Amino acid sequence: MFSKSLKLHVNGVSHNIRFFEPYPFVVNSSAGKNLVDVDNNKYTDYWMGHWSLILGHGPKKVKQYVIKQIEKSWMYGTVNEQTIKLSEAISKAVPVAEKIRYVTSGTEATMYAVRLARSVTGRKIIAKIDGGWHGYTSDLLKSVNWPFKESESTGIINEEKVISIPYNDLANSLKILKQYAKNLAGVIVEPVLGGGGCIPATNDYLKGIQEFIHKNKSLFILDEIVTGFRFRYGCLYHTMKLDPDIVTLGKIVGGGMAIGVICGKKEIMEHADTTGKKKSERSYVGGGTFSANPASMTSGYETLNHLKSKRSIYEKINSLGEFARDEIRKAFDGKVVVTGKGSLFMTHFPKDNIHEITNSEQAAKCDSECLQRYHFKLIAHDGIFFLPGKLGAISDAHDKEDLRKMVLASEEFDC
Amino acid sequence: MFSKSLKLHVNGVSHNIRFFEPYPFVVNSSAGKNLVDVDNNKYTDYWMGHWSLILGHGPKKVKQYVIKQIEKSWMYGTVNEQTIKLSEAISKAVPVAEKIRYVTSGTEATMYAVRLARSVTGRKIIAKIDGGWHGYTSDLLKSVNWPFKESESTGIINEEKVISIPYNDLANSLKILKQYAKNLAGVIVEPVLGGGGCIPATNDYLKGIQEFIHKNKSLFILDEIVTGFRFRYGCLYHTMKLDPDIVTLGKIVGGGMAIGVICGKKEIMEHADTTGKKKSERSYVGGGTFSANPASMTSGYETLNHLKSKRSIYEKINSLGEFARDEIRKAFDGKVVVTGKGSLFMTHFPKDNIHEITNSEQAAKCDSECLQRYHFKLIAHDGIFFLPGKLGAISDAHDKEDLRKMVLASEEFDC
Repeated sequence: MFSKSLKLHVNGVSHNIRFFEPYPFVVNSSAGKNLVDVDNNKYTDYWMGHWSLILGHGPKKVKQYVIKQIEKSWMYGTVNEQTIKLSEAISKAVPVAEKIRYVTSGTEATMYAVRLARSVTGRKIIAKIDGGWHGYTSDLLKSVNWPFKESESTGIINEEKVISIPYNDLANSLKILKQYAKNLAGVIVEPVLGGGGCIPATNDYLKGIQEFIHKNKSLFILDEIVTGFRFRYGCLYHTMKLDPDIVTLGKIVGGGMAIGVICGKKEIMEHADTTGKKKSERSYVGGGTFSANPASMTSGYETLNHLKSKRSIYEKINSLGEFARDEIRKAFDGKVVVTGKGSLFMTHFPKDNIHEITNSEQAAKCDSECLQRYHFKLIAHDGIFFLPGKLGAISDAHDKEDLRKMVLASEEFDC
Repeated sequence: MFSKSLKLHVNGVSHNIRFFEPYPFVVNSSAGKNLVDVDNNKYTDYWMGHWSLILGHGPKKVKQYVIKQIEKSWMYGTVNEQTIKLSEAISKAVPVAEKIRYVTSGTEATMYAVRLARSVTGRKIIAKIDGGWHGYTSDLLKSVNWPFKESESTGIINEEKVISIPYNDLANSLKILKQYAKNLAGVIVEPVLGGGGCIPATNDYLKGIQEFIHKNKSLFILDEIVTGFRFRYGCLYHTMKLDPDIVTLGKIVGGGMAIGVICGKKEIMEHADTTGKKKSERSYVGGGTFSANPASMTSGYETLNHLKSKRSIYEKINSLGEFARDEIRKAFDGKVVVTGKGSLFMTHFPKDNIHEITNSEQAAKCDSECLQRYHFKLIAHDGIFFLPGKLGAISDAHDKEDLRKMVLASEEFDC
């Protein structure tokens, strides 16, 4: 089946990271915590749809409403009530969402966030984090993978407008930001690096960056596409007492359907208002054919609605995450570093004697081949799926027994 | 309801063009040819989900399979059989699709097409058409709306890397292209301008552009997001005997669910292969969390499958389109120009005495306020919905009686 896919598709996949050696299995169905492949192998899934499925695959509470909506229709191309409902839920839980615009993907959301920052400030430079990942938008395709100084791709034309700062290193970050201060439109940061190694930012770091940004009249963009509604009913910035200007959301707020969200303060978002504005006055922020379609809006709303009515989900999955981090560490006799927060966790195999990973460079310098073999052993031997090399996300469909099995399977592994 | 939406959303919408004066209605459901708003007004819809719903809203033949899929799940985040099925269908019908990559929106597809062209050629400049619309990607956000020389937005940083040529004017287009020949990575063209006024390209124009591009070793990108599977089972380029290097698809091939597709010749698409390539060798083409999800792949496949099994649909809707163009012209005593092709049509109210519209500048110089009033009259008085100012798309759910009613309603209108 995969060789068929290879003939038709670049790398045989439709997302580079979905390829892994020797070849990825082909999924036939999924339910709850499980993926089932076309050979009827069942996997306990910790990839969980790029970490978007916090309630598991196809949760009943959401599915029934999605099907009801699909029975009506899945595309209006117009204003609809489903969008208003989801926005009411988001704006109540995420105070910075004074105004909202829906797009179709996280890549689009971060592209627009950056455009808004440049429009509002009239400046050009955007700063991002070494190892920060904000999707494939040309506006932020820099310093994603180690070595950060090498271009990520041929065919990129505006790299000089993006600068990069070291995560959790306030002194050196400020040093760089100060050099570009006059032309700095904004800084975009994930409060927990996702693709970059599942690494939380320290509060001091984000506070320090924010302080500089606001003094400098630049914009503070928090990319909460992974972290929004992941640890609590709302965003992470709120518990960290941060004051971002723009927050991007995705994944969980679409309940597994295509979504990207730009949330922001009213006076900032209104730069995107096109009514009665000349081209030279507006920030041209779109939407897209599929933006705010009733299927994804329903899927998102019902996911949030369920999370809101059953807050114990967060207690449960956060504590399972803590259990996973502690027990994996023990399983490897402390020879690994397990990063993460709440229900997100990732195992790193340090090559040297480090006991802590606080930035993406340290994560990249770990033994990634060993990590690949570890994840592949879990796939092939134990029916446990992590996308090789990526962090794991616990959903409400998982329980402690699943995590115990995963820990036991880890104990058997040796690089 | 809309004032609620205004409080929550920029312009009250999630796509700038979905706003119209005095305010857009809020849709509650849709079926077949109809949109129904929250006040229970029913509209015969010619907007048809941004022109993506060629079988009408929620067609049974597609819906039953989408629901079956949703019952299994709507997001795997992995390789799946549904994707392989859709790609087999596309590659058979669209010969240039030797390799395919799915993304989540048309905006993403054109962004990657441009990146590929720059990667393959090692050059920077992309040429587009005055009035050409390829989504909101920062890489192509130029010369969309008249006056084309004015920037489309604040906050755009790479406009000097995009040049623009006049549609259907080969001599002047070549003159511009020749100036940039050495650094020209590619040209991207819609074979029928969609947002730019529903204007077909002449065969001579596209052939002439293609000849220059290929001699110049640049890439010829055809954006068939609107036109792919719109006029026939396959792309328009095929009937025009063109030889594009990359073709982008969307809309119809997703059956109304979120999709973007990059199709291309094998040797070009393989620049996006990341396996065993250094950063400096690859074109970093992504996918996205939602790319190739089983719900959109099913919706797309079943739409194509139905179109393939019932080719008479094209005969029917193409001839209804011809009927619409002829009869609207008559309804306005020849004082309008009705552009279009096949099932796409658009009415223009020329201010001067022109009888033909062959480019976006001519379209923009028509009386757009009159067009808005015309469309709004149809909405408010006749229960007929065109997105004000935009072209109409006929679906298989429409019949001649619908078009007759639309023509009669048009006869009553006077600017």
